[in-house]
Amino acid sequence: MSPDSASLRDRWRHIIFGTDTPAGRYFDQLLIIAIIASVVAVMLDSVQSIHQEYGVILYAAEWFFTLLFTFEYVIRLWVSDRPVRYARSFYGVVDLVSVIPTYLSLLFPGANYLLTIRALRVLRVFRVLKLAQLMDEANQLGSTLVRTRRKIGVFMFAVTVVIIIFGSLMYVVEGPANGFTSIPRSIYWAIVTITTVGYGDISPQTPFGQAVASMAMITGYAIIAVPTGIVSAEMSKAHMVRRYERECPGCHRHDHDPDARYCKQCGTGLPKPGETP
Amino acid sequence: MSPDSASLRDRWRHIIFGTDTPAGRYFDQLLIIAIIASVVAVMLDSVQSIHQEYGVILYAAEWFFTLLFTFEYVIRLWVSDRPVRYARSFYGVVDLVSVIPTYLSLLFPGANYLLTIRALRVLRVFRVLKLAQLMDEANQLGSTLVRTRRKIGVFMFAVTVVIIIFGSLMYVVEGPANGFTSIPRSIYWAIVTITTVGYGDISPQTPFGQAVASMAMITGYAIIAVPTGIVSAEMSKAHMVRRYERECPGCHRHDHDPDARYCKQCGTGLPKPGETP
Amino acid sequence: MSPDSASLRDRWRHIIFGTDTPAGRYFDQLLIIAIIASVVAVMLDSVQSIHQEYGVILYAAEWFFTLLFTFEYVIRLWVSDRPVRYARSFYGVVDLVSVIPTYLSLLFPGANYLLTIRALRVLRVFRVLKLAQLMDEANQLGSTLVRTRRKIGVFMFAVTVVIIIFGSLMYVVEGPANGFTSIPRSIYWAIVTITTVGYGDISPQTPFGQAVASMAMITGYAIIAVPTGIVSAEMSKAHMVRRYERECPGCHRHDHDPDARYCKQCGTGLPKPGETP
Amino acid sequence: MSPDSASLRDRWRHIIFGTDTPAGRYFDQLLIIAIIASVVAVMLDSVQSIHQEYGVILYAAEWFFTLLFTFEYVIRLWVSDRPVRYARSFYGVVDLVSVIPTYLSLLFPGANYLLTIRALRVLRVFRVLKLAQLMDEANQLGSTLVRTRRKIGVFMFAVTVVIIIFGSLMYVVEGPANGFTSIPRSIYWAIVTITTVGYGDISPQTPFGQAVASMAMITGYAIIAVPTGIVSAEMSKAHMVRRYERECPGCHRHDHDPDARYCKQCGTGLPKPGETP
Repeated sequence: MSPDSASLRDRWRHIIFGTDTPAGRYFDQLLIIAIIASVVAVMLDSVQSIHQEYGVILYAAEWFFTLLFTFEYVIRLWVSDRPVRYARSFYGVVDLVSVIPTYLSLLFPGANYLLTIRALRVLRVFRVLKLAQLMDEANQLGSTLVRTRRKIGVFMFAVTVVIIIFGSLMYVVEGPANGFTSIPRSIYWAIVTITTVGYGDISPQTPFGQAVASMAMITGYAIIAVPTGIVSAEMSKAHMVRRYERECPGCHRHDHDPDARYCKQCGTGLPKPGETP
Repeated sequence: MSPDSASLRDRWRHIIFGTDTPAGRYFDQLLIIAIIASVVAVMLDSVQSIHQEYGVILYAAEWFFTLLFTFEYVIRLWVSDRPVRYARSFYGVVDLVSVIPTYLSLLFPGANYLLTIRALRVLRVFRVLKLAQLMDEANQLGSTLVRTRRKIGVFMFAVTVVIIIFGSLMYVVEGPANGFTSIPRSIYWAIVTITTVGYGDISPQTPFGQAVASMAMITGYAIIAVPTGIVSAEMSKAHMVRRYERECPGCHRHDHDPDARYCKQCGTGLPKPGETP
Repeated sequence: MSPDSASLRDRWRHIIFGTDTPAGRYFDQLLIIAIIASVVAVMLDSVQSIHQEYGVILYAAEWFFTLLFTFEYVIRLWVSDRPVRYARSFYGVVDLVSVIPTYLSLLFPGANYLLTIRALRVLRVFRVLKLAQLMDEANQLGSTLVRTRRKIGVFMFAVTVVIIIFGSLMYVVEGPANGFTSIPRSIYWAIVTITTVGYGDISPQTPFGQAVASMAMITGYAIIAVPTGIVSAEMSKAHMVRRYERECPGCHRHDHDPDARYCKQCGTGLPKPGETP
Repeated sequence: MSPDSASLRDRWRHIIFGTDTPAGRYFDQLLIIAIIASVVAVMLDSVQSIHQEYGVILYAAEWFFTLLFTFEYVIRLWVSDRPVRYARSFYGVVDLVSVIPTYLSLLFPGANYLLTIRALRVLRVFRVLKLAQLMDEANQLGSTLVRTRRKIGVFMFAVTVVIIIFGSLMYVVEGPANGFTSIPRSIYWAIVTITTVGYGDISPQTPFGQAVASMAMITGYAIIAVPTGIVSAEMSKAHMVRRYERECPGCHRHDHDPDARYCKQCGTGLPKPGETP
């Protein structure tokens, strides 16, 4: 690598990954604006009346943003020390997926409307605005959800079985004549009902079907308490917090209660809260 | 300022801001009644049959209340020691906004129906009834919501991104023929679905669209657990924290009830809440 | 009062208020069966096809149960030591209201369908089955709701104001042409939307109306977290429970933490948990 | 019993109940696949277009799986040491119910669509995958729900009474002309409304009916907080209780973390969990 290209790479790296330099911040802000503008452009283009009048401009904008983001993606790969790791990371995948639909639309017209997946890129906003506290909140939320994922998973599994059974039952009870034309469609109805969405595009007509539907509704209404309870309890636990402020001088353990005076792990005296150890 | 006008101003101040004097309480009660009466008048006027019969009276009432509230607003500005601060406060803005629609309706017919914004003025009721305990509850609720605003904000941001993606996906999957005529309209559908409102004015017709919709519904049904968990945990925490405020001088134990006078561990007298030990 | 009538009164009292004697239990069980039978009869009578065939029998049953319950009500008044107190109690009012509709139906046909208010009488089942533990749970639930009534009240007040404002806004934005024919009707729509019921009998047609409706939906979806959080936090607090098991020998105070060794009120030593004081 | 049949029985027992032997695991995995395949086959058969083309194959598959599962059920009964206990257990009942519909369909066409009850058999997946941690989570969830069943029961009982009363009220207010053709149907409407499902197949047309409906909606919206609060509090409590299990021998303090080895208050060594101090 020639010194020139190395220094060019360094410069780009500062712009793209830097958050402290003016150039880096400026780049980040421009990027967020470009992302929002591109998403809005795709949305507007889908409105018939706007498409007829400004279709050409919006089509140009779409290609402009796509080429811009493609260029950005290549630069990111180039300046990154571990390009494979970046490409596999959440943001790396989103960055790639955000440009593919335009190219795909050359083969499959309409695919370009999936460009709104770019909205995911907006999540970079946390990094851009350096909202440390916001990031912290987002991480807390994320880690709570990670810790509850097994319980929620078990719950969703049970709900799925309940939905399949209610769906088939309604297929037998109501039958195709009342809109329940197949079990998959009846399962769709069961999901609409148990989640309490209730479009009303399919609804039971016979008294017995309405009785079964009533049971499904009450089930859905009552069991929402379960995931809510799981997340609430987990968050309450997380709040017994300020537990991570002090470190035991003996065994370096962290999660002590705010009023603990001795380490629960090794019995060593702890520094007082707010004191430097 | 002449002594006369000063005393007049003082008298008005007592009436408007006083809550202990009979005049002040009387004024406050009259004000609440006037606010409710004016909101009811606007509502009734919007009903066609009532408008045809009593339109003139209700129109007169509207102007009567508007002039009354305008007069009150001016008086408040006049007697207030810091008029700008009042004008910028929540109640100041509401007081102003509560009279503007009538004047606007001279230019834009129909604007007067926005007068129901006056309902916000009813919030003064807390002050009027001097429901100290109610105010306390309201403040507790308010401060909980303030403390959770960042977490709720992060959550709403994530939900927005999810809604945009589901909306565009359905636009591609279902298309204009099934009512998903544009991405903005599909996003409207996604909001109707994920919030579990489910009007049914737009609903998926194709099996694949119904599968995507089912995912959207389950997402909406499951993630309601997140804001609920946030608020629940925050409210539980508020109660916990007050137990950690005081330390026993004898055994250094914390977690005493706010009303405890002696340490539950060793029986030593505790410092009073808010007192330095 | 002759000795005979006194003894008759005593006998009735044993039957009606006794829960330990065989006669009392037998009476209670019969009563529950009669209540359920009478509610089912009213329901069946409302079904057109059943009414045509069995209308006479059901009409007879209605009068039979009404006279029976009227007789029971009079007996209860007679044998009660404090008849006025009974008549004013929750059950006394329900017992009276449970017989009135039949008499009213002589004047206003159709009023008898309100007889299903008798379902409230079924709440006596708790007493009949002597489900002490169930009663305990019901009381815990009740006292939690009583303790949260102020917070919930403040919340409902704020929601009411929000509903009025969204309703009027939609009336102005959508107008009578799209089904929002008056502000009261728009407020009905706002309630349907914010509670996430979403019938779809009235739904916004214009893009701007859909945007306002989206805001209303998201509001409704997010703020459900507030009452849920209030009740959850209150119940968690109630669970710090088993706090009422021990009484301070010094000041007779009860609510001590399970691990307390000294009274928080007066510093007296507490009995150990499970120990008789 | 001849030694041969005994050894055959032993071999089958190892295959069916063994989870450590390769044969046992292989059998379990095959079983899960067979269950899912059979459920999918039933679902596909209900779709008209698929039924017309592949009806014969799917009918054969149905009988194949039914005979397979019948054979499995008989084997399970045979190799089990306590066949009656197995037959009465949850899995035993599900295993039997999973094969009955096919035989029933010889008498009642259509009954075979109830075969999707087989989906319940998929719950065996927990055992198969030996997901000890998942099982643990599932058990925690289950025991929480068991502990809250009385409170939830009381709540559902109260909701039922509310639903009956709202249903009859609407029958009287709106009447058959507006779709409320009988009290049972009005109760169906009340369930649809209070659970916030809101199909919109029946909806109030008169202003007074809409006012009553609004009350029903707000009731449903507010009371969902109750079961949610119950479950949240119970889950939080489960975590709390484990902190009160051990007492410090030195200072008699409780509330130690389950993983604490030394008292946080005085540094004394704690008894191990489950050990008598």
